[in-house]
Amino acid sequence: MNSVFLDAASGEPMDPVAREAYMAALDDGWADPDRLYREGRRARMLLDAAREAVAEVLRARPDETVFTASGTAAIHLAVAGLAQGRSRISRRILTSAIEHSAVLHAAEFTATRLGGEHVTVPVTRLGELRTDVLAQSLSGGAAVLCIQYANHEVGTIQPIERVRELLSAAASGATGSVPLVMDASAALGHMPMPESANWAVLCGSARKWGGPAGVGVLAVRKGTRFAAAWPEDEREQGRAPGPVNVPAILAAAAALRAREAEREAIAARHRELVDRIRAQVAATVPDVEIVGDPRRRLPHIVTFSCLYASGEALLLELDRAGYSVSSGSSCTASTLTPSHVLEAMGVLSHGNLRISLPWRIAEEEVDRFLGELPGVVARVRAEAPSADSSPTAQPNASGTETPGSETIDALGLMCPIPVIELAKRIVHVPVGGTIRVLADDPAARLDIPAWSELRKHSYLGEQPVPERGERAVAYLVRREH
Amino acid sequence: MNSVFLDAASGEPMDPVAREAYMAALDDGWADPDRLYREGRRARMLLDAAREAVAEVLRARPDETVFTASGTAAIHLAVAGLAQGRSRISRRILTSAIEHSAVLHAAEFTATRLGGEHVTVPVTRLGELRTDVLAQSLSGGAAVLCIQYANHEVGTIQPIERVRELLSAAASGATGSVPLVMDASAALGHMPMPESANWAVLCGSARKWGGPAGVGVLAVRKGTRFAAAWPEDEREQGRAPGPVNVPAILAAAAALRAREAEREAIAARHRELVDRIRAQVAATVPDVEIVGDPRRRLPHIVTFSCLYASGEALLLELDRAGYSVSSGSSCTASTLTPSHVLEAMGVLSHGNLRISLPWRIAEEEVDRFLGELPGVVARVRAEAPSADSSPTAQPNASGTETPGSETIDALGLMCPIPVIELAKRIVHVPVGGTIRVLADDPAARLDIPAWSELRKHSYLGEQPVPERGERAVAYLVRREH
Repeated sequence: MNSVFLDAASGEPMDPVAREAYMAALDDGWADPDRLYREGRRARMLLDAAREAVAEVLRARPDETVFTASGTAAIHLAVAGLAQGRSRISRRILTSAIEHSAVLHAAEFTATRLGGEHVTVPVTRLGELRTDVLAQSLSGGAAVLCIQYANHEVGTIQPIERVRELLSAAASGATGSVPLVMDASAALGHMPMPESANWAVLCGSARKWGGPAGVGVLAVRKGTRFAAAWPEDEREQGRAPGPVNVPAILAAAAALRAREAEREAIAARHRELVDRIRAQVAATVPDVEIVGDPRRRLPHIVTFSCLYASGEALLLELDRAGYSVSSGSSCTASTLTPSHVLEAMGVLSHGNLRISLPWRIAEEEVDRFLGELPGVVARVRAEAPSADSSPTAQPNASGTETPGSETIDALGLMCPIPVIELAKRIVHVPVGGTIRVLADDPAARLDIPAWSELRKHSYLGEQPVPERGERAVAYLVRREH
Repeated sequence: MNSVFLDAASGEPMDPVAREAYMAALDDGWADPDRLYREGRRARMLLDAAREAVAEVLRARPDETVFTASGTAAIHLAVAGLAQGRSRISRRILTSAIEHSAVLHAAEFTATRLGGEHVTVPVTRLGELRTDVLAQSLSGGAAVLCIQYANHEVGTIQPIERVRELLSAAASGATGSVPLVMDASAALGHMPMPESANWAVLCGSARKWGGPAGVGVLAVRKGTRFAAAWPEDEREQGRAPGPVNVPAILAAAAALRAREAEREAIAARHRELVDRIRAQVAATVPDVEIVGDPRRRLPHIVTFSCLYASGEALLLELDRAGYSVSSGSSCTASTLTPSHVLEAMGVLSHGNLRISLPWRIAEEEVDRFLGELPGVVARVRAEAPSADSSPTAQPNASGTETPGSETIDALGLMCPIPVIELAKRIVHVPVGGTIRVLADDPAARLDIPAWSELRKHSYLGEQPVPERGERAVAYLVRREH
């Protein structure tokens, strides 16, 4: 049986339309478009047409639109270019807390270089920007604000029009309006773009809309102050150095145009399938939290966390069963740190799975996945290691254990075990009593409050426990029901 | 009749081997190689194999070799990364004067950012690095030195082993040896690489060896101090941010491997054809200067300048006749400034043509080109506009015209007219007499001395002539024979 690929948001196979355009361009558009001879002129003509097609979808002008080597490059150039261009006005870079890591890296790096600061604006538990906090932050001035159009991990769409109102309200004659970098990477091809008056810079990645790797798009609205933050050359208006990859750009444009033509029909279908996943997962997998805004969201992404299971173990078990998905619990093979998106939303970071539907997913594949998922989760939970010795009530370090309280020693145990033990033990303390969980796995700091909120208990806070080790922390939870 | 493409050094069509590898990789290696599922693991495996194949050709270790978004990106990251890494030791960036513009831009940009300076080391009239001047420059210390392995415009190969000796001799216990960035872009695939002990960083571009656009290679020798000069992520050792374009990398590796296998045979063939071009052009085109080292050169590149003709007019006339070549007189459609390479070599910058042979050029195509070239040059020369009024002897501004001297007023006239008029008139002054050429086209500053040297007359210097306009300059030449 073929395996089922459900991680389109990380990159899906190139769209057949793009593949065909790429092959045609290798014959027709391979030359340097800056050359004066026939092959160069032909490449230039094709490039101009591609730029027009892409700009139309972005709702930008062709002369505002340049191509970069990737979505990441577009974002780096945008953040650094705007921050540099406005560094005499302000050196604060504001971003939401759940931007793509490329935005956060660029903001951090640029703020450090300019001697400024990177300020993150929090989001709600559904992943929506806290516009009230943004309004306050803007009062301190900013060089640039970065807000994504929709989130790549949980699908939540941001209130871009509201952001625009806040930026207008905060604008002053002396410093102008803070320019908005809108990262549309996750949204392009899946939803219509807002009108260009909403952003100063728009960034996207062709790989996310069925185009080839190696093509990013950077639209900079006329009149935006933009300073090169990287050695420039004469290509792409001096904004994206290096050769222009015409064949890949033609393939990217072909894919975007094809997807735009089908977008509404496919989005409706994706929405239906995602609704089915949300309903079925909630109904068939015990102890699951579905995250992200249930309404204002991308059509093709759905994320949920299976309590008391390790994300990595779920990935491996699903892979064995023939399903390729992603997890915010351990986003890549090389880093096992939990997703900063889930952390900022204050939701559980363990046992997390992200499903993102390829353009032409078969209904049958989704159903097959839904049929197998409960068994996979059950197996992973059954195999989860538990604490070496069953935790027992212990007097706490300061000897002030309140009657009806209990301490769990989960030191040295990895996520999700501290939460598993908490869930097991809390039923043994009286309502109103407290549990202290001693843990040194950093994921506990996210997961114990998130679990308490989810289960409607009260999270009371944390305290270091230096006598049990440098990283030992006690987390306090009160049983409420 | 098909047109003949003779501008491979700007980029030739993707090698069929690379095209096949790319298509196969779209099926097999499209996934994110950092993902844990089967598609990701498969992409990782293919990527590892491609890295090994490329590293072998570079004579680097696979764990020293990362892939970037282009050769330009590799160069930018290399120059900025090394300069940043050694900025406490020195802020001087040394390059040859004839590096690729990507190197010069990166050096200029980085030196400015770090508050240091960019120093260029001159070359001889054949384009060979002045190692005597380099030795002096090194005594002032440097953060980094950039020397290309072979020049992309005239083909001259640099004495990398001699550079290494000078770097070793200048090394001190306190500051170590100045690291060398060796840009091998023009050479890779056409000649063997020197052993890795010769460089700290090697840069290349897949587009130049028959691979796809969008792949650069950056090898950093173990132990080299390298600081990220751009927002980093966890990919490619934190040296090349952004997604790894696995299909394009696989295609690049397949092309390089295929070319290496055939390299010696093809290079011998290219050498033969280039020798034929050098001999035939010299024999059939009057007033031509063939530039670059006749022996220590790349096999596939040959450059010459046709006196008294405009490079751009030659390009257009050749294009009409069905030949695509490049010119150092006006390197792109957007910039009409003469090549900095020709300028640094002190050779004629007007009427310049660069021929670079595609991998599988047909002998018959070269012969066809050689047969038509003399007629094309003659047509362009015949159509060259001449001075509105035939220049006549005039007293010069200070009224001190020596007997036997003459002044040509070429103000307002574009290259190559000032040189054309100089050549016409010099035969009318006695041997030992002088000609003053008044010109305001900046190319005259390069071309009048270069022409004088070529024709064995003496160039005596220049003087501003403010009474004839802000940019008016008088160039003085003495007739010697």
